[in-house]
Order: sequence, then structure tokens, then C-alpha cells
Amino acid sequence: MENVKLAVIFYSMGGTNYQLAKWAAEGAKEIGAEVKVLKVEELAPESVIEANEGWKATVEATKDVPVATSEDLEWADAIIFSVPTRFGNIPSQMKQFLDIQGGLWASGKTVNKVVSGMTSAQNPHGGQEATLLSLYTSMMHWGAIIAAPGFTDPAVIGAGGNPYGTSVSVNQDGEMVEDVEAAVKHQAKRTVTVAEWVKKGNQ
Amino acid sequence: MENVKLAVIFYSMGGTNYQLAKWAAEGAKEIGAEVKVLKVEELAPESVIEANEGWKATVEATKDVPVATSEDLEWADAIIFSVPTRFGNIPSQMKQFLDIQGGLWASGKTVNKVVSGMTSAQNPHGGQEATLLSLYTSMMHWGAIIAAPGFTDPAVIGAGGNPYGTSVSVNQDGEMVEDVEAAVKHQAKRTVTVAEWVKKGNQ
Amino acid sequence: MENVKLAVIFYSMGGTNYQLAKWAAEGAKEIGAEVKVLKVEELAPESVIEANEGWKATVEATKDVPVATSEDLEWADAIIFSVPTRFGNIPSQMKQFLDIQGGLWASGKTVNKVVSGMTSAQNPHGGQEATLLSLYTSMMHWGAIIAAPGFTDPAVIGAGGNPYGTSVSVNQDGEMVEDVEAAVKHQAKRTVTVAEWVKKGNQ
Amino acid sequence: MENVKLAVIFYSMGGTNYQLAKWAAEGAKEIGAEVKVLKVEELAPESVIEANEGWKATVEATKDVPVATSEDLEWADAIIFSVPTRFGNIPSQMKQFLDIQGGLWASGKTVNKVVSGMTSAQNPHGGQEATLLSLYTSMMHWGAIIAAPGFTDPAVIGAGGNPYGTSVSVNQDGEMVEDVEAAVKHQAKRTVTVAEWVKKGNQ
Repeated sequence: MENVKLAVIFYSMGGTNYQLAKWAAEGAKEIGAEVKVLKVEELAPESVIEANEGWKATVEATKDVPVATSEDLEWADAIIFSVPTRFGNIPSQMKQFLDIQGGLWASGKTVNKVVSGMTSAQNPHGGQEATLLSLYTSMMHWGAIIAAPGFTDPAVIGAGGNPYGTSVSVNQDGEMVEDVEAAVKHQAKRTVTVAEWVKKGNQ
Repeated sequence: MENVKLAVIFYSMGGTNYQLAKWAAEGAKEIGAEVKVLKVEELAPESVIEANEGWKATVEATKDVPVATSEDLEWADAIIFSVPTRFGNIPSQMKQFLDIQGGLWASGKTVNKVVSGMTSAQNPHGGQEATLLSLYTSMMHWGAIIAAPGFTDPAVIGAGGNPYGTSVSVNQDGEMVEDVEAAVKHQAKRTVTVAEWVKKGNQ
Repeated sequence: MENVKLAVIFYSMGGTNYQLAKWAAEGAKEIGAEVKVLKVEELAPESVIEANEGWKATVEATKDVPVATSEDLEWADAIIFSVPTRFGNIPSQMKQFLDIQGGLWASGKTVNKVVSGMTSAQNPHGGQEATLLSLYTSMMHWGAIIAAPGFTDPAVIGAGGNPYGTSVSVNQDGEMVEDVEAAVKHQAKRTVTVAEWVKKGNQ
Repeated sequence: MENVKLAVIFYSMGGTNYQLAKWAAEGAKEIGAEVKVLKVEELAPESVIEANEGWKATVEATKDVPVATSEDLEWADAIIFSVPTRFGNIPSQMKQFLDIQGGLWASGKTVNKVVSGMTSAQNPHGGQEATLLSLYTSMMHWGAIIAAPGFTDPAVIGAGGNPYGTSVSVNQDGEMVEDVEAAVKHQAKRTVTVAEWVKKGNQ
């Protein structure tokens, strides 16, 4: 394939969205994409993180993951965002990352990025749709091309049938309830494939 | 309680939303509300309905349910809408019912109705959030007061944790997957209770 | 260019969205697209239409415009929808058209259509954003690829800066308040161009 | 009136939303509400603010405004949020404030707050609807009661007819394009009035 560049950008407190990001990277690489897995800056004070075992463990597990930059966005042909839901919307950490891209946006460099999103929540209907729809609203401001999975593969149905992007429920112990790996990989491949079409066509 | 009048307005093809509507009516009556259960006009041709066993059965089962009118809306202090999702939005049958209320709306008679919504879908994430959010967008045009359930009762969590309104998944055989009866009744009581506050205060 | 097929599907009561549709068709043809301008079925009773001069005139003006069908959707590489807002959501007439595509959807034939939307309202903020976002939610169910205009051309800013799609305010006399012709044509060209990339890549 | 407590919580970079907040406070006080005007924490580094004249001036002008806390939310019967749009969604600064209310939310203390929102943008359709709808999605998670203005007063139409909340366009010089003062005051009175009904009824 055309050498498609994919940035998988996540925020993760309990590890779920980091795992989703890694699965997306695996899926994308299987069809030849060049992939960067990137996190966004934490906004919470260290003392709060220290007091939470799971959060602390995630910060430790992701300490070598590079922080996403405007240059990464410029580099990317495709972007997959992965975030937990916070009251039916993306977390402030990811919002902050989007908000500071005003310069990139004003220079037209966010245009025609092919994007999709993934999310997680404690409750099956606790923002798993709304969070992705909020993300896509912002992406339209960027002039991005939205390639949500729809029902383009049986894996989508198997993972709970979220046409806006793969989403997963997380139980009290921080474990994923549904097996969404196949859906994530399908979504990654679809996002990359559409990005390849756009990249080739747009040359 | 103050004599609160509740209109439960549904569209149902397979029977699920008729059942949700009846549970809502039961819940509301338990706390003394006066309730009308009402359907909206069908738009599908009879030949299509005849060819579908489940649909035909629902039409038969609801044949004595009155069709909702502008007068019913004017009469009501509270309204609960119940609809299946159609591509992440309310069905055209319910949209048609809303659309033809231009006269009522222009005369200010939709203002301060206390509303909430319920929905169903084949997939857990197949529009169970998005459909309710679309409904509420229209309700803001009406000047309605939105009293979504949030997480105001453990029954909400038990039913899948949809803060926007009770939602249920329906399997291939048309059966509800989750037990949402308690969540529906809680939602109905909450909607009626808020409507009672508004009615008393607004006198 | 690759022979891109565009369906411009509108609902119009006062003529505005028919005009937007025609401008979109012009823009698309300028870059070589094959275009069909199509209306959706009216749901209002004839007596209501007869009693409204502007509506009656629009029905008359569009009487030779073909009604959109599933075959048209299957034929199209790109689709532009144009509808007035009705309480912050698409009108029931268009929702009905979407809802009856269950067969097409189930056979996977809505996948990878490149789509965008246009709208109109009496008030600048009377649903000009919300209506388009509702449309796109449904399009994600279809597995469509969403190519909203974003801020990809100065004409978008000139027309009121709606990144979700061109929108226009309509005054009491049914006249458009802003000059959106250039924005519509830009949007049509962008939608067709992205569709060309997708079509070529997807062969 | 019953002693209704209103928190007007804003984020402002250029001064517009601080002004909207002050008008809301004035309107609410005219009908006897007890009002706190509160800002949320800035997330941007000081060096960035220093380099921007308008931003620096706003920080200076609001330096004595208290930062909103969980206690303020608990204290309030009604909340009006006022934020600029950032890519069709609330700014990260306000999102951060919402996100850190997990403790308050888990203890049920966000329930039955009566809320509405206000916003601003450079473009008439640059998120003036979408930003408010995103805010309300989060408010449903809180179990809040949403009292958007709808079209409950001619001032709403005069200000651009945004039924979701007052919104204003801001030109290149940071000046408001439309005169929205009356609409803001109406919205504040409506929010407080509904909160009074809820408070009285809920005793």
C-alpha cells in the first residue's frame, strides 16, 4: 500500500484506552501503515495520581510513550483518537490537546486528515456514543474526513454495534467487559484504507 | 400530589416501545399522575405492515390506543416520548408528529412542559444515546424543561446506565435483552415529580 | 476527472433548499460530476399545501424533479442532502426517506458514500448546526464517509462560517438573508472531489 | 421570591463571556436571586497569555473573580455556564472543571441543579449551537434539569434566535456583533425562575 501514516492518540487513566490504542496500531500495521502511538499531556496533579493505584500504574506503563504534538498531526494522514468518556464528552486532557492546535488549524494543516475515534465507559450507555459524536463535531471544524466504522464488518456487531467507533464497557476492577479487539483492528484498517484513498487521490 | 397530567407518546413497530410506554404509565400512576398513553400516526403503507408478522401484531395490539394530538400536548404537564432508534435519530413517524406542532409552538403552548425520552435498538450502542439527544434538541426549541434521569436511582445503572433516558436492546426475536422495567418506572416518577414542582411554582 | 456520480437530495417547502440543491448541482458539474437533483416524498396533506402560497409554488416548481429512490443512492458515489431545519433536526420528509433505506443499508450498499449536508432556518441559530449534526449521525450508521466543508475555503466564512455544511437564514418573505452561492458550490466541489478519491482508491 | 442561589461560571479569554456572565448576574439579581460570578482555572501557560494583549487584559480584569469550586456547585440551586466555543465544544478549561466534579457527582449533589448555557464564537455558525448541546449532554449525566431559553421571549429572536442558550458572534477586534444583553438577562431570569419552582417543590 501507499505509505499511510497513522497517529493513534490516546488519553488513559486506567489503561483501557492505551490498550485500545495498541490494538489499533497492530491492526494498522498489519496492512502496512506506519504508526505512532501517542499520549496527551496529563492535567491532574501528581498527588491525585499517586493516591490512585490504577492511575499510577497507567502513568508508569505509558511513561515512554511520546506526547502528541502539532508536528505529529501534520505528519499524519490518518488519526485515531481513543479516550474514556467524561460526562458524555471527551476528557479535558484530550480537549486541551485539540484546543491548542489553533495555529495548525489556521494554517489549513488539519484539512483532509482521515479520522475515527474509540472510547470506554463504566456503563454501556454512559457516553459511549455521545463522546464520539462530540469528537467528530470538532473534527468537522478541522476539515477532517470522518470515516467512522458504521456496520462495515461483523466485528462491529460483536463488539456492541457502535457505528461511531469502537467502544467498550469497563467494570469496577478496570477490566474490559466486551471483547473488542477485532472491532478495534477492523476500525484501524478501515481508517487507514480510507486515508490511503485520500492520500493517493490528493497527490 | 398536585394533579399532574402526563402524556406518554410512543411509536412502536415491534411492541417494545409500547411496553415501555405502559410501564411508564404504571410508574406515573403509582404516584398519582393522570396519564394518557398515546401513539403517533403510522407512515408506512399497509402492504408493508401486512408483510411483517411482528409489525402487524403491534398494529393490532395498539389499535385502540388514541393517536396523539396537539390538544394532548396542551393538556399535558409532562411528556415522555418512547421510540425505537432509526439510524441514530428518532423515527420519521415521531418526527412527523413533532413537525406538525408548529401552530402549538408558535402560540407558546409547548413552553415549560417537562419532558424525558426512552428508546430501543438492536445493538447496545446502535443509537441508544444519540436518539435521545436528538429528541432533546427539539425539545429545547419547544422551551420544554428537560428532566433526563441522570443517575438518580440505582435502577438506571441496572438498566445499562443511560443518563439520557431508559434504553433497551432488542434481540432478533424482538425480545428485550435487559430488564428495564424498574428504570422506566423510576424515570416516569422523576419526570412527573419535576413536572409537579414546575406546575405548582408556575401557578 | 473520474466520472463521479452525485445525488443532490432535498426537501423544500419554500424553495430555499431547492435553490441550494441547484447551486450544488452547478458547482459539481463545473468539475465534471454527473449529477441528479432529487426530491423526497411530501408527507403533508394536499389541503395544507394548497392553503400556503409559498409551499404550493414550491410544489409546482419542483413537480418535474424526480423522487429519490434506493436505486439513486446505490448509483451515487457522493450525496449532498439539503433540508430546512425542523426544531433542530431534519424534517420528517427526509427522515422518512432515510428510514426506508433499511434494505439498502442491510445489503451494505450505503457504505463509503461520500456525504455532506446543507440547511436553512428562520433564525441564525435556529438549528443551522444541530440539523446537520443529526444528519451526520445517521450517515455514520450508513458507513458513509463524511466530508463536511470545515473551513476549507474563504467562501465558508463569507457564508456565516458553518463548518458542518452551508446554511442560510431565510426571512419572513422566504428570501435568503446571506449570499451562500459560492459556499454551496465550494461544498459541492469538495464533496465530489473526496468522492473521486474514494472511488478511484476503492476500485 | 424564594431565595434562589445562582452560580454563573465562565471561562473568558477575550472578555466576552465575562461580560455575558455579568449581564446574567444583573438579570438574576433583578428578580431577587443571590448570585456568585465565578471563573474556572486557566490551563494555558503564563508565557502564552503574556504574549496576547486581549487575553492578558482579561486575566487582569478578572483577577479578583473567585475560582469556582465543588462547594459553589453544592451551594447553587441554578447554574449558568458561559464559555467561548472551541472547535464546536466547550473549552478544555471548563471541561476540566466539570471533569473534576466526580466526587460531587458520585455523592448525588449535582442532581436537580437547574442549568443553562451561553457561548460565543467568531463565526455565526462556528459552534454556537454545538457547544451548548455538548454542555447539556454532560449536564444530563449530572442529573441536572435543563432549562434552555427556547423561544420564550422576543429577546431570544432579537439575539439571533438560539433556543439552546444565548450566543454571540465576536469580530476580529474582540467586539460583540449582536446586542444580546436583553437575551442574556431573560435567560438568567428564566433559569432562576425554574430553579425557584424546583427548590420550592423539592423541599
